[in-house]
Amino acid sequence: MRSADRVVTELRARGELWEAAPGLVGLRGDTLVLYELIERLAAESAGDGVCEPWRPPAALALSTLVRARYFESFPQWLTLAAHLREDAASLERVARSTDPATDACDACAPADAALPPAVCYHVYAALAGRVLEQPLQVTTQGTCWRHEGDALRPLARGWAFTMREGVCLGDADVVTAFRDRGIARARTLAAALSLDARLEEATDPFFRPTARGRELLQRVKGLKQELRLPVGDDTVAAASFNLHEGFFGQAFDIRLPDGSPAASGCVAYGIERWLLAFLAAHGTSARGWPAVPSIHLPEAAA
Amino acid sequence: MRSADRVVTELRARGELWEAAPGLVGLRGDTLVLYELIERLAAESAGDGVCEPWRPPAALALSTLVRARYFESFPQWLTLAAHLREDAASLERVARSTDPATDACDACAPADAALPPAVCYHVYAALAGRVLEQPLQVTTQGTCWRHEGDALRPLARGWAFTMREGVCLGDADVVTAFRDRGIARARTLAAALSLDARLEEATDPFFRPTARGRELLQRVKGLKQELRLPVGDDTVAAASFNLHEGFFGQAFDIRLPDGSPAASGCVAYGIERWLLAFLAAHGTSARGWPAVPSIHLPEAAA
Repeated sequence: MRSADRVVTELRARGELWEAAPGLVGLRGDTLVLYELIERLAAESAGDGVCEPWRPPAALALSTLVRARYFESFPQWLTLAAHLREDAASLERVARSTDPATDACDACAPADAALPPAVCYHVYAALAGRVLEQPLQVTTQGTCWRHEGDALRPLARGWAFTMREGVCLGDADVVTAFRDRGIARARTLAAALSLDARLEEATDPFFRPTARGRELLQRVKGLKQELRLPVGDDTVAAASFNLHEGFFGQAFDIRLPDGSPAASGCVAYGIERWLLAFLAAHGTSARGWPAVPSIHLPEAAA
Repeated sequence: MRSADRVVTELRARGELWEAAPGLVGLRGDTLVLYELIERLAAESAGDGVCEPWRPPAALALSTLVRARYFESFPQWLTLAAHLREDAASLERVARSTDPATDACDACAPADAALPPAVCYHVYAALAGRVLEQPLQVTTQGTCWRHEGDALRPLARGWAFTMREGVCLGDADVVTAFRDRGIARARTLAAALSLDARLEEATDPFFRPTARGRELLQRVKGLKQELRLPVGDDTVAAASFNLHEGFFGQAFDIRLPDGSPAASGCVAYGIERWLLAFLAAHGTSARGWPAVPSIHLPEAAA
């Protein structure tokens, strides 16, 4: 079993992985072919047959993250999309600068949007104010951003990474059944990839134990599970299975026909981590990779 | 022929298009199915059979844009990826704020990275300092960002949009042949989608006529062509075909075996604009859409 560092060193040497900056990875060659296979398998696995596919916008309104109480929970991860001030003098200064990178940072307007820390926020934002006549199941994928400072590592912990999610809104029973099927399907995917998965109870790394942080921490207690895959002597959380109870239904005013806030839950796959776990287990040379059988996932209705 | 506004109004009413913020569009339903078809067709068309697929990082180092002289050319479009300062006091202030969106903007660290204005910059950055033993042809797709202020329009002019590119580096003859095949293949794609394409000479909208801007403007004179597709009484530039001569080879020190800077060229498709043109021509209801024949593209070697 290779360590994450060894996987990355081998991929770099082969020219199949490079970084534009810490946590911003590009892929090519056999590793890209494998990445795209895993991306498709995760889409099938999270999609659950009955989910409606959505293509999310590339960024979120800041007001969406305010509503989701994101700033009090995870401000340490946030990445904003900031364009330059549009007045001619600011732009002219950047255009004529001998140090334009620095001057461009100084010329930024206050950000209008945040790069998504998770794709499911898009779903809650798009449904805000609605009454759900029936449960809604959505599958969606996007580039997500979490700036983890010195902890950034290629594939294991990207500043930008790819998240495939299944999202369910409805009553608590429907959402719990969705989450449980999601766990079964993720286990099936791990087995199909000959990976040795372990399910664990988990909590989110809320920002310091402020009063509101603690409240949120308690709220999700016991509501988050992770599928961990081995990488060297360590493991990575390659998928998480989350019950939010009525938190997002309340925050975004998404209601059931009886007027109560919809429950929600999501199943989230970190595609680059599945790739890393596969390469750690089976090596970085395509000649050593096991055949990936076409996977037969548990029926949506099972 | 529907106008862009009418297309967007119809898609919104049907729930198949929404915006998270101006220029940030999400898609679902039949429109998403069509989007994904066009995405695949553009990949085949730009890929040219012999191109090596690359998956680019989600952002660029600012130093890459300095090398490409981007800041002096197009600062008006630039969007930076800015995370918050990591000191506990700044994060605590955001976490406890009653106006966290504003305070998060104030707590931004100077940006480390730029959201890509075009995907081909990744290719030049990854090849910096190399000698090309033979011509290189790459196909790549990514989310690109250009902030065009009040001009942002859903599908027609996104803050974020999807660009598929074919990129060629080699001697001038190889690059010109690549560009010419790219034009032929894009015309074939337009015909397959029953769209009435027109090829036009074009120039890039360099930032004001500063001395260096003028120089660049002259440099590209006659080197950019666009395929324009009708949308209502207007047209959109749905693909561009660019010869850069030795500009990027010089800027990124990418050389031919004889030591001269490599020439480069690219073929770029704006996926959302192809989608918009299709919907304008054929209507927003899938019932009215023509069958899209499997397209037979000119041979790579032709």
